[in-house]
Amino acid sequence: MREPDADGRALVDALVGDRARAWDLAGELPGEVLRELGAQGLLCAQVGPEHGGPGATSLANGEFTAHVGSRCSSLRSVMTSQGMAAWTIERFGDEGQRRTWLPALTGGQLAAVAMSEAGAGSDLSAMGTVIERDGDEVVVTGRKKWITAAAYADLVAVFGRYGDGAAVVVVPTTAPGVRVERVPDPLGCRAAGHADVVLDGVRLDAGAVLRGAGNPVSLLVTAALAYGRFSVAWGCVGILRACLEAAVAHARSREQFGRPIAGHQLVAGHLAELYAAEQVATRACEHASRCWDAGSPEVVVATVLAKHVGAEHAARGAASAVQVLASAGASDGHVVARAYRDAKLMEIIEGSSEICRLILADHAGRGR
Amino acid sequence: MREPDADGRALVDALVGDRARAWDLAGELPGEVLRELGAQGLLCAQVGPEHGGPGATSLANGEFTAHVGSRCSSLRSVMTSQGMAAWTIERFGDEGQRRTWLPALTGGQLAAVAMSEAGAGSDLSAMGTVIERDGDEVVVTGRKKWITAAAYADLVAVFGRYGDGAAVVVVPTTAPGVRVERVPDPLGCRAAGHADVVLDGVRLDAGAVLRGAGNPVSLLVTAALAYGRFSVAWGCVGILRACLEAAVAHARSREQFGRPIAGHQLVAGHLAELYAAEQVATRACEHASRCWDAGSPEVVVATVLAKHVGAEHAARGAASAVQVLASAGASDGHVVARAYRDAKLMEIIEGSSEICRLILADHAGRGR
Amino acid sequence: MREPDADGRALVDALVGDRARAWDLAGELPGEVLRELGAQGLLCAQVGPEHGGPGATSLANGEFTAHVGSRCSSLRSVMTSQGMAAWTIERFGDEGQRRTWLPALTGGQLAAVAMSEAGAGSDLSAMGTVIERDGDEVVVTGRKKWITAAAYADLVAVFGRYGDGAAVVVVPTTAPGVRVERVPDPLGCRAAGHADVVLDGVRLDAGAVLRGAGNPVSLLVTAALAYGRFSVAWGCVGILRACLEAAVAHARSREQFGRPIAGHQLVAGHLAELYAAEQVATRACEHASRCWDAGSPEVVVATVLAKHVGAEHAARGAASAVQVLASAGASDGHVVARAYRDAKLMEIIEGSSEICRLILADHAGRGR
Amino acid sequence: MREPDADGRALVDALVGDRARAWDLAGELPGEVLRELGAQGLLCAQVGPEHGGPGATSLANGEFTAHVGSRCSSLRSVMTSQGMAAWTIERFGDEGQRRTWLPALTGGQLAAVAMSEAGAGSDLSAMGTVIERDGDEVVVTGRKKWITAAAYADLVAVFGRYGDGAAVVVVPTTAPGVRVERVPDPLGCRAAGHADVVLDGVRLDAGAVLRGAGNPVSLLVTAALAYGRFSVAWGCVGILRACLEAAVAHARSREQFGRPIAGHQLVAGHLAELYAAEQVATRACEHASRCWDAGSPEVVVATVLAKHVGAEHAARGAASAVQVLASAGASDGHVVARAYRDAKLMEIIEGSSEICRLILADHAGRGR
Repeated sequence: MREPDADGRALVDALVGDRARAWDLAGELPGEVLRELGAQGLLCAQVGPEHGGPGATSLANGEFTAHVGSRCSSLRSVMTSQGMAAWTIERFGDEGQRRTWLPALTGGQLAAVAMSEAGAGSDLSAMGTVIERDGDEVVVTGRKKWITAAAYADLVAVFGRYGDGAAVVVVPTTAPGVRVERVPDPLGCRAAGHADVVLDGVRLDAGAVLRGAGNPVSLLVTAALAYGRFSVAWGCVGILRACLEAAVAHARSREQFGRPIAGHQLVAGHLAELYAAEQVATRACEHASRCWDAGSPEVVVATVLAKHVGAEHAARGAASAVQVLASAGASDGHVVARAYRDAKLMEIIEGSSEICRLILADHAGRGR
Repeated sequence: MREPDADGRALVDALVGDRARAWDLAGELPGEVLRELGAQGLLCAQVGPEHGGPGATSLANGEFTAHVGSRCSSLRSVMTSQGMAAWTIERFGDEGQRRTWLPALTGGQLAAVAMSEAGAGSDLSAMGTVIERDGDEVVVTGRKKWITAAAYADLVAVFGRYGDGAAVVVVPTTAPGVRVERVPDPLGCRAAGHADVVLDGVRLDAGAVLRGAGNPVSLLVTAALAYGRFSVAWGCVGILRACLEAAVAHARSREQFGRPIAGHQLVAGHLAELYAAEQVATRACEHASRCWDAGSPEVVVATVLAKHVGAEHAARGAASAVQVLASAGASDGHVVARAYRDAKLMEIIEGSSEICRLILADHAGRGR
Repeated sequence: MREPDADGRALVDALVGDRARAWDLAGELPGEVLRELGAQGLLCAQVGPEHGGPGATSLANGEFTAHVGSRCSSLRSVMTSQGMAAWTIERFGDEGQRRTWLPALTGGQLAAVAMSEAGAGSDLSAMGTVIERDGDEVVVTGRKKWITAAAYADLVAVFGRYGDGAAVVVVPTTAPGVRVERVPDPLGCRAAGHADVVLDGVRLDAGAVLRGAGNPVSLLVTAALAYGRFSVAWGCVGILRACLEAAVAHARSREQFGRPIAGHQLVAGHLAELYAAEQVATRACEHASRCWDAGSPEVVVATVLAKHVGAEHAARGAASAVQVLASAGASDGHVVARAYRDAKLMEIIEGSSEICRLILADHAGRGR
Repeated sequence: MREPDADGRALVDALVGDRARAWDLAGELPGEVLRELGAQGLLCAQVGPEHGGPGATSLANGEFTAHVGSRCSSLRSVMTSQGMAAWTIERFGDEGQRRTWLPALTGGQLAAVAMSEAGAGSDLSAMGTVIERDGDEVVVTGRKKWITAAAYADLVAVFGRYGDGAAVVVVPTTAPGVRVERVPDPLGCRAAGHADVVLDGVRLDAGAVLRGAGNPVSLLVTAALAYGRFSVAWGCVGILRACLEAAVAHARSREQFGRPIAGHQLVAGHLAELYAAEQVATRACEHASRCWDAGSPEVVVATVLAKHVGAEHAARGAASAVQVLASAGASDGHVVARAYRDAKLMEIIEGSSEICRLILADHAGRGR
């Protein structure tokens, strides 16, 4: 087990090297990289030592997430899924369930969280997926859409209706009746293993059902979503850092009209906006992390804000970075071109910018 | 020969069908589609009947370009190159040269224009490419970068230094010493055949040199660039029309919270901005076309404006369209995802947004 | 009577001179200027010679409106009101009513149009104002809000409910029961004479009621609004022209670091955007005017688009112009400071940007 | 002496009440309000108890500044000037000078800082103002432009050339040869007492010259500017808070189509952006304050960033707020209309947005 600090970052750097471009073009992350990071507990670094994880604070976990995101957004997406899965199990499983699955997740097994469906995002009552009790077993039926990392997952935490309410069931992807159908050619995070997960009468021991450990089910969703948004937000910081680094390096070395283009004010304007974007997104994420670490009730809105601000700035920043590099960066796998596609996806997933706006407006309107 | 009107559009629709997505993912346009459109004179529809072309007005040619652009930006890019090549030959070749090459271009041969180099955009004096006279022949040496459609071209109109000034030489890509090196995985217009063109002592008959027909060489560049910008600008209108169509169709059929999402104001806001963008870009292009048709000296600045406004609105509009379709449009080959990548490239090529701004500012400052 | 051409513009230049700043600071236009322009028929230049007006085309009227707007947005606002009033009378009055009031409006009398109320914008059925028939007379009761030019008006065309439907009644501001209450310190167009108009049982001859000349009442409103939007749109072009002129003049004369600031790219970027904004707004307005002149049914949406595009670009352009002039332009009455305030108002009146977006989205969604 | 905490805020609320609108329209703050706040040490709350001030941390001072800014940007501007003056005296005066002037500034005297000139902003070598030694006296000659709060100041800290270098001289505005010329009708912060300060051979005791206490003069300027930017940045947070409060209150009470407009998504979008802007600006300011309190060398760039981000978000946020209130907020003295004008000024003063971008780009380029 490693800490998600300098040590963890060095491992990421060694494992990723300069291969993110190739992974993006191939649309596939190598299994051994995922297993290695997973086995170090680094894909869900918030999990505590009692379950084999590093027990990172939200701030340390966030900064580590940004680092991974600056190297490879697809890998960061897998990390987001693993973290959400661990969070879900930790908060809504009972002690026995925690002891069953958390060590698996910090030991190299990979997990995804399956919430959205064709007709429903995070609205539990609208979900078509049903977890039905049948004696000591449950039967799971449904179709989950666009599940990040599902193509790599050993386990999927599936949200569905359960009795009068809702629950999560931990489904091994090897169980009979599970089908994982890869989403072809996603616009961004192309190697993140997005897939639809089809559950066709999947029969499991009833012990696979997480029932919230006494918490209301809507909180269950909100908390898992919040974790995902927190992770995506820091991932956006990573995108911005990668863009800033690439743009600055290019602007200082590329010459036009006899001097580095960094000296041309319209280029400098792009660099300034990139830097400001990276700072602004970092501050929003730090604030959300402090709320997590302090257990503040403000955490939900602070996380939505960080995700929204992060995604919008990453999309805009990546567009600026492509502009600075121009044809030198307009190759599909180039760090800024990837950023341009990856960041756009960030404005859609884990609560689109439109959903985020409505949540923020609602919060703003209530507090006054 | 067909007119670039309803008839020409029907041919484009028939040839493209629903294959633009596949072409984009494969990074390749089928040769027979290019040959067929080329043989109808539709890839350079401004060329007159005396040279086998339809002789379209700038307005008709522009609207046709937008139509092609709404179906497939890569195909539109090839058309832009063919049109620039024809324009260059028509304006700066002598009568004999026109009679040699224009019928070839309206008869199915494909052409590209090679201007930019690693160290020079359109600055002729900074070009490293040299056309050297050697008796009745010339020898061409240089390296041209990111040449649109070069991978498909039979002929390349190469700009270079010539004696004390500059000239264009028409180089068959089959000539000994010519090497066409495909740009791997461009961010947008992936099937447009972008390639570097290496000229390694290419020996040609001196009759291949276009010397401007008495016009100053800088005009030569400005006019060819203007044609390219005009074509890209209308291509951006096409991108916007495709985005608007896809966004409206999705917003009217996709339901959320019990009604089509077009009824949600934040979605309606995106539709409105897309519609406004399409209208604004169309107006700018129509104005530029009217200037072309009237032979107005305002044509250069009107074209820069149309290109700048078109590219910026297309980039913003495509981002909105992806947002409306969300995961339904976030597949790499989907019309809005392609638009998102294609439009970004439009902000870079044929004069980046930064270059356009400097030209417009200079014009604004001079006239007052 | 003068034409709204070079001759009309010269008159405007002579009457306005450099006094727009003083009028803005005082919040008042001089009556003699309004009377003089009115008596030349220039405040509603579309009215034909048969009623004493110049009979300008929509394009000529629009360009003239832009000219007035470039000199003084408050004066242009008064012109917008006069034009709307004339339009309303012309389209929905009968021949006798036209002969009564149109010569008055081209002869120096001033008019306003009163539509909006505290609880209703242009929704006739929600209006609280009632026109009640009483024998050969009518009695008008209601309260109209934020009526442009009402403070100067001799006549107000008041929209209200009438019987089962709606109508317009021409109310002299001298009639007993009419009270005009100035809006204090409007943010922009400070000298435009914005006022609330209170109608307290105003008794008039029934001949003052315009009943639509057989047209449905909703069209009545739509047409009058469209005229207002058309006029505001061209007024925004005027704002942009004034800003561009001031910004260019300053950027060419003000030196920093040893050269005119126009040579600094971040300043050039502002000039470019201002120029592009002016061009884009002009094109949208020209298109709307062509629709008016051709009697095209597209006129309603083209006018909304021109107003929306014009107002947004004027607001953004004015902000850029202030930025170019910095402290030199940050005096409240300075042309760019006035533009900054005036343009903001344009995003609110005659259909706010939000209303415009909904109309445009609706149109975009319907046509496909 | 009061702390700039709840107690200080309550005093501000009591003194300002609902009079900010009237002060803005009149262009004048009441002297007794300034004296009262000044005498409590609240206009430069960072000054320590040894000099009669509250000794607030940068964070406490910043939050207090935001509070004042949310009530009245003109008053906040005066506070910014007083704080800059105190900072300048504290850092670059010797112990005796501190003991002379700081108690004056915490005791009710008002001060301004005079740096900018027609031909020079903060470039000391370009300044035309000269401080000449003449025996035990100095003679000060020059013309300072657009000096915030100068109209109210008892003392002005004037930057000028001094011998081979530069220095600051503390000039009583009552000294013979000093002329304070009010800037007429500034676009924003209309009651902030902006004035040109003309120094016509002003003769003072040489003890009035602050020579940097051993620090290089350029640092002197940078530090004073940084203090000003810090204060303006927090002032922008105040503007955003006032706008958010007004927009939310209006959106919850104003009904259209049968429900509060907060329920219309395009309005909600504005509220969300306002809330996000307020949060983002707050985070940037908190970070800058933490740098101040920690004595971090990052303070200069963190302050530029906070000022830039604050001003841009305040300008955009105020425009949104006006849009939400529409005609209800479009009266010149209304809190959102004032915010719209005040925020624009923030993009110009203490380093325009363009200057900030160049500083940020330079920093971004250097660190990598």
